[in-house]
Amino acid sequence: MKSKAIFYHAGCPVCVTAEQNLAAALDPARFDLEPVHLGEQSSRLAEAKSQGVQSVPALWLDGQVFHINFGAALGDLG
Amino acid sequence: MKSKAIFYHAGCPVCVTAEQNLAAALDPARFDLEPVHLGEQSSRLAEAKSQGVQSVPALWLDGQVFHINFGAALGDLG
Repeated sequence: MKSKAIFYHAGCPVCVTAEQNLAAALDPARFDLEPVHLGEQSSRLAEAKSQGVQSVPALWLDGQVFHINFGAALGDLG
Repeated sequence: MKSKAIFYHAGCPVCVTAEQNLAAALDPARFDLEPVHLGEQSSRLAEAKSQGVQSVPALWLDGQVFHINFGAALGDLG
């Protein structure tokens, strides 16, 4: 069974680079990747916060949050 | 032919988590991953700096540097 991976982003340039290079590099045999645009899916903001996401882009993987470079603070998104 | 991926770290707890979860999640069919401990391999510090690495852990992937959370500043390593 594959693990779930969530890529939180806001469509920013830093986010796009991270999605196209880092998120896309994950092993598709082991991970189901769900991209979540927090600017468009503001209903997911509370979930992201509760996972510990402080800024985007961020990758949630096996219960761990990895902030990747810095695009925007979560507080600026909603 | 596989792409090269370099995981720069310093053995710090944040680094270990990133290596065991994020770096280990890369697709082994597409990437050859080289972990570089900048505390032990200080000869690689100049290379890391020239790639744009400012802190560890960081992942170099296809010419892009992704700083993952924050463990230590490069300036504190050598």
